[in-house]
Amino acid sequence: MITRMSSLFLRTLREDPADAEVPSHKLLVRAGYVRRVAPGGYTWLPLGLRVLRNIETVVREEMDAIGAQEIQFPALLPREPYEKTGRWTEYGDGLFRLKDRKGADYLLGPTHEELFALTVKGEYSSYKDYPVVLYQIQTKYRDEARPRAGILRGREFVMKDSYSFDLDDEGLSRSYQLHRDAYIKIFDRLGLEYVIVAATSGAMGGSASEEFLAVAETGEDTYVRSTGSGYAANVEAVVTPPPPARSLEGLPEAQVHHTPGTPTIATLVEYLNTKTDLGRTFTAADTLKNVMVKTRQPGAKEWEILGIGIPGDREVDQKRLEASLEPAQVALLEEADFAANPFLVKGYIGPKALQDNGIRYLVDPRVVTGTAWVTGADKADHHVVDLVAGRDFTPDGTIEAAEVREGDASPDGQGTLVAARGIEIGHIFQLGRKYTDAFEVDALGADSKPIRITMGSYGVGVSRLVGAIAEQHHDELGLVWPRAVAPADVHVVIAGKDESVFAGAEQLAAELDAAGVRVLLDDRKATPGVKFADAELIGVPTILVVGRGLAKGVVEVKDRATGDREDVPVDEVVARLVKLVRG
Amino acid sequence: MITRMSSLFLRTLREDPADAEVPSHKLLVRAGYVRRVAPGGYTWLPLGLRVLRNIETVVREEMDAIGAQEIQFPALLPREPYEKTGRWTEYGDGLFRLKDRKGADYLLGPTHEELFALTVKGEYSSYKDYPVVLYQIQTKYRDEARPRAGILRGREFVMKDSYSFDLDDEGLSRSYQLHRDAYIKIFDRLGLEYVIVAATSGAMGGSASEEFLAVAETGEDTYVRSTGSGYAANVEAVVTPPPPARSLEGLPEAQVHHTPGTPTIATLVEYLNTKTDLGRTFTAADTLKNVMVKTRQPGAKEWEILGIGIPGDREVDQKRLEASLEPAQVALLEEADFAANPFLVKGYIGPKALQDNGIRYLVDPRVVTGTAWVTGADKADHHVVDLVAGRDFTPDGTIEAAEVREGDASPDGQGTLVAARGIEIGHIFQLGRKYTDAFEVDALGADSKPIRITMGSYGVGVSRLVGAIAEQHHDELGLVWPRAVAPADVHVVIAGKDESVFAGAEQLAAELDAAGVRVLLDDRKATPGVKFADAELIGVPTILVVGRGLAKGVVEVKDRATGDREDVPVDEVVARLVKLVRG
Repeated sequence: MITRMSSLFLRTLREDPADAEVPSHKLLVRAGYVRRVAPGGYTWLPLGLRVLRNIETVVREEMDAIGAQEIQFPALLPREPYEKTGRWTEYGDGLFRLKDRKGADYLLGPTHEELFALTVKGEYSSYKDYPVVLYQIQTKYRDEARPRAGILRGREFVMKDSYSFDLDDEGLSRSYQLHRDAYIKIFDRLGLEYVIVAATSGAMGGSASEEFLAVAETGEDTYVRSTGSGYAANVEAVVTPPPPARSLEGLPEAQVHHTPGTPTIATLVEYLNTKTDLGRTFTAADTLKNVMVKTRQPGAKEWEILGIGIPGDREVDQKRLEASLEPAQVALLEEADFAANPFLVKGYIGPKALQDNGIRYLVDPRVVTGTAWVTGADKADHHVVDLVAGRDFTPDGTIEAAEVREGDASPDGQGTLVAARGIEIGHIFQLGRKYTDAFEVDALGADSKPIRITMGSYGVGVSRLVGAIAEQHHDELGLVWPRAVAPADVHVVIAGKDESVFAGAEQLAAELDAAGVRVLLDDRKATPGVKFADAELIGVPTILVVGRGLAKGVVEVKDRATGDREDVPVDEVVARLVKLVRG
Repeated sequence: MITRMSSLFLRTLREDPADAEVPSHKLLVRAGYVRRVAPGGYTWLPLGLRVLRNIETVVREEMDAIGAQEIQFPALLPREPYEKTGRWTEYGDGLFRLKDRKGADYLLGPTHEELFALTVKGEYSSYKDYPVVLYQIQTKYRDEARPRAGILRGREFVMKDSYSFDLDDEGLSRSYQLHRDAYIKIFDRLGLEYVIVAATSGAMGGSASEEFLAVAETGEDTYVRSTGSGYAANVEAVVTPPPPARSLEGLPEAQVHHTPGTPTIATLVEYLNTKTDLGRTFTAADTLKNVMVKTRQPGAKEWEILGIGIPGDREVDQKRLEASLEPAQVALLEEADFAANPFLVKGYIGPKALQDNGIRYLVDPRVVTGTAWVTGADKADHHVVDLVAGRDFTPDGTIEAAEVREGDASPDGQGTLVAARGIEIGHIFQLGRKYTDAFEVDALGADSKPIRITMGSYGVGVSRLVGAIAEQHHDELGLVWPRAVAPADVHVVIAGKDESVFAGAEQLAAELDAAGVRVLLDDRKATPGVKFADAELIGVPTILVVGRGLAKGVVEVKDRATGDREDVPVDEVVARLVKLVRG
């Protein structure tokens, strides 16, 4: 295929678009790959569509290779199935909802768990039918609160979503592993640097769950990784390694102190170190901060008040707290709640009042038996010192609610954690029976008894990958596509005005085309400077410059990524490039 | 590629679905190609998706061959551009509208004229940039009042829409002709029987317009064709050939007659033939029926009353009337209109009162100068006989509002018209400057003056084509796909239980696969009867039966379309089939 720049629907821009913050967004717009139509809505111009399709092909090949079968659902879906699973309301503002001319409720599919489950139920009935893995590469819709970074977080986007249906948990594990392996192949083929992080399963329910994050400083997903091992995890999924429990022997008695005007950790530590004579220096890490929240289970009417105890040197991480309490909803206490529970003395809440009043009390995993804390004495301006866990109070359990910090010990015991950022490009997880329960998806077993099917759910952000790859593969001059996704194999720049140069370049392009090489031919009447700049911006991996050297039988081959240039005899260059392209 | 029926996500049905009326719908559901999700919303199962993709490939190849460039727009579009062209409201209930979380108005694109025009305006500026043809193969949405016939008229469907942008009318004509030629190639390659009919351009505005209709009794589009030529047209587009004008010399005087109780054509003719002695026999064709309507131009507030005169033996065809008056809105007169215009005497309206009172009066093209008519005398129970056009009244023009009947003379003067039905599969038309005017899409000319761009618009119903092809290619046993779109090339039926038969079939399938033949292999543990029935239903063009004959070195090749069977030596069959498939 020869694509001629003289007629290609492409106009490159010299200036970054005003609304673009990240390099991939700037460059994909400047190089004429995408254009914005609405917030989070983009048009794919010819070169962009090619990259998108190349990625789709890689994804499709690897899905087919694990025996997954491609189908395609509508994007416009009726309310009923989503009502049945509760997602019609749970999805909140993130769901695009609409009515048809008869007033019936519809939605634009954000993911298709319901439809896949219903379809398998509709076609399959016997245990002999299973397992099955189905997938689609399809346009999805989510009304993101803050669409950003161009195609990295759009409101209309292309996703590969697949779903496995198995008779039992071992089957689900196998399907999960097949996907995990396929995703590794996909992202490797696409030339991505990525990490696989342990994840929580979010609002989808389920058990094992991992995310594939493309490493990128501009990514909006934060994760942590270990300096001493391959460990990586979503911040929400980090499990705090508890210190060993300590002996209660010989620990000092708990003592209540008058600590006027110390409702915060900072004022408390300051007071203890300057206004008391306890013979020790206290730090925030010696204090136990009790944060009050209330939670409500899905479908429940009543809220439950909950106390969360974490070391005073750490803040509560709202996302970790919410992930720990899912699927329950979490809210802060309101004035009315404090009024209704006068034993909660703001700024001075301690474990005792909570436990005396039947309030569930969960603590950070660092609060192990034998650790001594300064904490609230349930009385204004008073704290208790040397309150010992396992002696003076017994929590109802632990909770991962404290922030994760760089330097924290890695959960696998090797090295410490550092923070990093990435772009979520894939997510695999064991969904379990949430959807098959909702729709009673059963297989008739060999013993004629029904077997409830278990599901896995697996997504790849196909259009987002265009952005993620661009984010990793660019330099100050423009895009630098990996060969597997590039919109062409060779960018032929005609650097000269002579007819003979044009004719020579056309000849080479034709020979390359005949050999199956995809050629982007810059046959425009423009200066070499303009053409070179556009070639760097567009980012085809190999640039062939046909210019004055042609008269001496020489053309130049340039590697876009390394910048290496080499003069090559014109009668050798086609064979050289064909070899290069075929790898 | 080998697709195994033992694991294929496919369950055929023995019964027709309850909601299916047309053969394609019944068979596509029974053979497991599609499943209904909502009214007008279908899921493509694996075999259906393959056929859809095969069609997409043919369409894409022929569009690329005429230099059209593929891009892709979002389906979720902002209101503003559609507001600007008036289509936000003009589309009426047919448009799916929705709001995002911020309350901004969006729509699901029914066609993308606005976006294409804006995109070209955004990228191009000089006359040197033109012409350009852009297309997309994309999911579209229309809230049809009566989604029907499965995928033939869905509310979510795949369409190829392309748009040409030219500097002048000759350019537009060339772009139109390129598309016309491409469409002929597409529909020929897809094995369709179709007609190209003259069409009106509908709500889109514009001039030259033709529709491609797949011939099908079950089609919902009616058209007429000539018995004596290749002429075919939408009923709306039929131009009535006027008879030659006649001399006014020696025609009898117009005379008013008392015709009590004759408000209808039937009662009038009966009265004239039995209660008067005019020395002639009258038929309905001798009478001139005056139908009153009112019209309103887009954006106008006032309605205009309009008189339509047509021969009394014909009814007004509402669609033809509306097409003739487009883009104006048309409505019947209400009682209040008659009350406000007392000169309109219901049942006895004549040309005179209309013309005396300044009402525009348009007549059927058959009402030429010198024709004499019986028509209303603008007085209850009175008609005028021998009222001559061009002598006693002069219409303000002609209008195509009368019904077209089988037996009418063909507009090209050759043969007469007969009615037929078809499925609209393509539409090409010269849109003109409606959208480029709305968005001021100009090119800077060589003389530095702006040139307003002119557009063509061209659509192919890609998903509908799956239904249209099925409608033409089936028999009582099932589907009979043309090779170009079939979900596989060869359906290998293992008709036997012996391991050797299975092994032999597997061997043949592997050899076919190695030669690039797409194989559907029925390796299920089912009876030969079940397998044969499914093979007929699924409709792969060639069926290879591997059974007991294998022991004697013979397999059977069956042509699905003709039913022809032939025993072929097993060591020759692969070569034979490869040749057959490659054509």
